[in-house]
Amino acid sequence: MTSHQGERALVVVAHPRGASLTAKAADRVHRQLKAAQYEVDLLDLYAEEFDPRLGVADEPDWNDPGKTYSEEVRAHMARIDAADAIAVVFPVWWFAPPAIVKGWIDRVWNHGFAYGGAESRLAAKRMLWLGLAGGSGEAYEANGLTAMMDVQLRMGVSNFCGIADAELRLVHDVENAEAEQVLSGAEVAAAEFLVDRALTGR
Amino acid sequence: MTSHQGERALVVVAHPRGASLTAKAADRVHRQLKAAQYEVDLLDLYAEEFDPRLGVADEPDWNDPGKTYSEEVRAHMARIDAADAIAVVFPVWWFAPPAIVKGWIDRVWNHGFAYGGAESRLAAKRMLWLGLAGGSGEAYEANGLTAMMDVQLRMGVSNFCGIADAELRLVHDVENAEAEQVLSGAEVAAAEFLVDRALTGR
Repeated sequence: MTSHQGERALVVVAHPRGASLTAKAADRVHRQLKAAQYEVDLLDLYAEEFDPRLGVADEPDWNDPGKTYSEEVRAHMARIDAADAIAVVFPVWWFAPPAIVKGWIDRVWNHGFAYGGAESRLAAKRMLWLGLAGGSGEAYEANGLTAMMDVQLRMGVSNFCGIADAELRLVHDVENAEAEQVLSGAEVAAAEFLVDRALTGR
Repeated sequence: MTSHQGERALVVVAHPRGASLTAKAADRVHRQLKAAQYEVDLLDLYAEEFDPRLGVADEPDWNDPGKTYSEEVRAHMARIDAADAIAVVFPVWWFAPPAIVKGWIDRVWNHGFAYGGAESRLAAKRMLWLGLAGGSGEAYEANGLTAMMDVQLRMGVSNFCGIADAELRLVHDVENAEAEQVLSGAEVAAAEFLVDRALTGR
């Protein structure tokens, strides 16, 4: 395993239940990053009560890339700045991340910080979008949903902000596991195996 | 002009500023629907302080399509139920609607109501996604962004819920108009012309 001593990772997780499969997947990611000697900052958007509604204070001013955003947004920008690697772990709702993740992008990945500045501050970072999807991989492929999500997240957000080393990984067929609310040991093992595969395949 | 007397339309609008170009576009849509004799219900998500964060109360139960959702969500479902036509007017942020719209979908377009029930309650409705985009149509086409947004919204939401008569329309090159915060008369006229063209092209 490559050592990442001295490097930092930001793990973003988005699910209303602390015992969700998403939370378990994020925990698995967290532990794997720790094992690789990353220092990990865990951003649990629900637990931190992040408000995904971009308001006037955080509207970009296209004429001023140096605009000062709200204090909350600036604190989140600092957490991104500090990270060498960013992993966003989310349930796939409507073939996209939940609104709370979309709002984190809307508000924090803002003009002059993530794009539209003199240089790309984020270019050297690595990024993983890890989505847990109810549907099968076959259904996603047949309907162009994997490609759509790849354009939406890897290209439309990461690459747009200069992050070339970015990847979208989907873990499929988790609907039954999620539905149980309390996962059986076998389901957790199966789901964690999928998460591991997504990460180690990287 | 076809009369839609006796029919109802739901106009959903999502922008933090009441004087935004998005609000003006929604107002234009509103007036056009009124002229066609629709009774219009205006849902201004920011003004109504809609919370886009899906919580445990509104998590779908895959085993129970008859699950009772939160009172707030049930009220929003009733507004959708009552509508023959639905228009969602939004600024394109990250090649997608703002988080507040994503959360309206996440929470209200829920299992057993919008999909996964015995029949499709929404099948007979008509739907328009009207997005105001900063980028040019040429850039969107060249990067596959129009197709991506079409899969995301028309197919992934409307068609997924049985609404076959659905359409995504994008108004392009609005960045400068939006950026001004206070729009000049000429800019408003130019932007409104684009909105009209998008609507009449339908």
